[in-house]
Amino acid sequence: MINVAVLGYGTVGSGVVEVIEKNKEMVDKKSAQELNVKYILDLRDFPGDPYEAKVIHDFNQILEDDTVDIVCEVMGGVGAAYQFTRQCLERGKSVCTSNKELVAKHGPELLKLAVEHNCNYLFEASVGGGIPIIRPLNYSLTAEKIEAITGILNGTTNYILSKMEKEGAGFDDVLKQAQENGYAESNPEADIEGHDACRKIAILSSLMMGKNVDSEKIFTEGITKITADDFLYAKAAGMTIKLLGMSRALDENTVLAMVAPFLISREHPLSMVNDVFNAVFVTGNMLGDSMYYGRGAGKLPTASAVVSDVVDCARHQGKSVMCFWDEEEVTLADVAETKRSFFIRVNADDKEAVEKAFPGSTAIIVEGRKTDAGYITAVTTEREFYDKCAGLGNAVLSKIRLF
Amino acid sequence: MINVAVLGYGTVGSGVVEVIEKNKEMVDKKSAQELNVKYILDLRDFPGDPYEAKVIHDFNQILEDDTVDIVCEVMGGVGAAYQFTRQCLERGKSVCTSNKELVAKHGPELLKLAVEHNCNYLFEASVGGGIPIIRPLNYSLTAEKIEAITGILNGTTNYILSKMEKEGAGFDDVLKQAQENGYAESNPEADIEGHDACRKIAILSSLMMGKNVDSEKIFTEGITKITADDFLYAKAAGMTIKLLGMSRALDENTVLAMVAPFLISREHPLSMVNDVFNAVFVTGNMLGDSMYYGRGAGKLPTASAVVSDVVDCARHQGKSVMCFWDEEEVTLADVAETKRSFFIRVNADDKEAVEKAFPGSTAIIVEGRKTDAGYITAVTTEREFYDKCAGLGNAVLSKIRLF
Repeated sequence: MINVAVLGYGTVGSGVVEVIEKNKEMVDKKSAQELNVKYILDLRDFPGDPYEAKVIHDFNQILEDDTVDIVCEVMGGVGAAYQFTRQCLERGKSVCTSNKELVAKHGPELLKLAVEHNCNYLFEASVGGGIPIIRPLNYSLTAEKIEAITGILNGTTNYILSKMEKEGAGFDDVLKQAQENGYAESNPEADIEGHDACRKIAILSSLMMGKNVDSEKIFTEGITKITADDFLYAKAAGMTIKLLGMSRALDENTVLAMVAPFLISREHPLSMVNDVFNAVFVTGNMLGDSMYYGRGAGKLPTASAVVSDVVDCARHQGKSVMCFWDEEEVTLADVAETKRSFFIRVNADDKEAVEKAFPGSTAIIVEGRKTDAGYITAVTTEREFYDKCAGLGNAVLSKIRLF
Repeated sequence: MINVAVLGYGTVGSGVVEVIEKNKEMVDKKSAQELNVKYILDLRDFPGDPYEAKVIHDFNQILEDDTVDIVCEVMGGVGAAYQFTRQCLERGKSVCTSNKELVAKHGPELLKLAVEHNCNYLFEASVGGGIPIIRPLNYSLTAEKIEAITGILNGTTNYILSKMEKEGAGFDDVLKQAQENGYAESNPEADIEGHDACRKIAILSSLMMGKNVDSEKIFTEGITKITADDFLYAKAAGMTIKLLGMSRALDENTVLAMVAPFLISREHPLSMVNDVFNAVFVTGNMLGDSMYYGRGAGKLPTASAVVSDVVDCARHQGKSVMCFWDEEEVTLADVAETKRSFFIRVNADDKEAVEKAFPGSTAIIVEGRKTDAGYITAVTTEREFYDKCAGLGNAVLSKIRLF
């Protein structure tokens, strides 16, 4: 029997207990032994909860209990969660987490600590919720040189963009709806400004490079400026708009990584990932393209991923499974120097000036539109594009990158 | 250093050697040691080939060489491949294969043999080519009770159906084109009659159940009867036509498994899997739906999957990794008793009789069609549906299941 402790009895924490209990037969079989939730750490009490008796308030009780081998850190944040994780690993207790903020910030350090103490720090649930993506990158695509990873990594923004497209509604209205339905938090900044997606693409990029990609250096733009009118033009061009986290290995020590809304062709598999679903699109040098799709958030999908890590720890007791993510930092390429086409929506009155500034642009025709006009520019560096836009003053109403 | 032998220097075999050489740095790093291709077994000689010196003709040379730890069986068939695999496993040499026919036929027996000799029988490449799906089922979805698996599992038929849809062309014309382009074999039966997909869904179903699903008992229908006219109606109904391998766990010992063309909604993620791409759609009781998408065939994608198995063997030298696939047979549910809606295309002259036979059907309107008419029937058992069709004589031109 292996004893497990759960740190944090919130949404994911209660899901972890539920998955271990509901799928007990399967989980125990795959672990090759019985898993037992011995402690649940939370500041609150849970009178009447079926696991009330397991709830404790003192972390040291877990730390000092040598019969606890695996700890699920599902409390979030980078304060106590960081300290608790370090202490567990130092005692040789494996830690499984859904805490992408902590993984993005201290991943390689914690992985190293786990190796030093013959245990594991696993984080399948930190990216893509229940979608298996960390383990496929570590265990399955081992014969591949991964060249690029592009993902729809945040359920809230994907839900908002999908709704805007379907209903022709504006950003503010849909955000409000999403908050009312529980699909967006009352403080939605981490989602809509792209910070959540940024942490996830930092983790994926680090695994792709085998070295550390600093999430704080990744260019990040949210979706707050996207309008219903932009979707009209996207649709007319056979495209849609998605918030993408993308990463491309330029050489062994340089990566181009960014988070931003993109116009993406309706022919691309990522374009059909709607609502709260997430997907990660991976390009390898032998396999070519592959994609991993599923529920990127939610209590049970996320908990299922945490428990799959617990099973992995149970199978590898006393042994660190391989994960290549060194502390060495890779260089992030300057986004301003990258080349691409852009979608621009401009005041109809300024069409001539815009067409002069962006020779070789293709007009997108939306029937009946009189006040604005849409174009897809020729390929240009970001720097040149934004310089030109600045020169056009208020003529440019929207600018969105093309994937 | 670990010595590897490759059995069969055909398309996949030469790909395996290429992947190990081209991605040497990555593959050796992930294996935690150097992989060396020591022998290539083939009946032919390959004068001028860079690996000419490694080509041998006598399997016993591999079997008797105690320095060979891992063998890639990429020769195909169930004769010599079966004997060679058994002999290797009996000597404690791990075997990695792309041979779905052999895995479907003798999987549990060979897995047992591997466990008995502390080595591994791995078959990631047998389903979905380069798409990681076997390992995610075994290692990632370990906290899930898998309820259903549905896949587009054959690249040739998916290419043909995608072409028929795009070009409005007939089956025979597209098959001929596909043969000319190398996307279909000169004898295409295994693909177009669904036998290849059948073996793959048998393997996936067995892993879902943890027990053996006999591929020969799986109801299998190919795509030869699908017409360009059927696609017209499918499109008008917001659907497309795909050859699906599907499997649903009814209870611990009963599975409903079948291979057949289905009408599938354009809203379903599987509907956008086009051309030679494959995808496997998995429904778990906690995670809900997830999908794994990529190149289902081809030299390098398939070889990449074989080499990922080699890496897994290298990491687990002397230890069998877990795979739950017992020899115990599960019962296959009678497809005739399952309930679903059907698409039917009928002679326009017989509309009245058909509408009488299938009350509650919905007509699909294709503008300008006069000679035929399309319907989606109410939900019925397959048995009842086919009985009624038989009673209608030649009135029914096409019948395709609805997913």
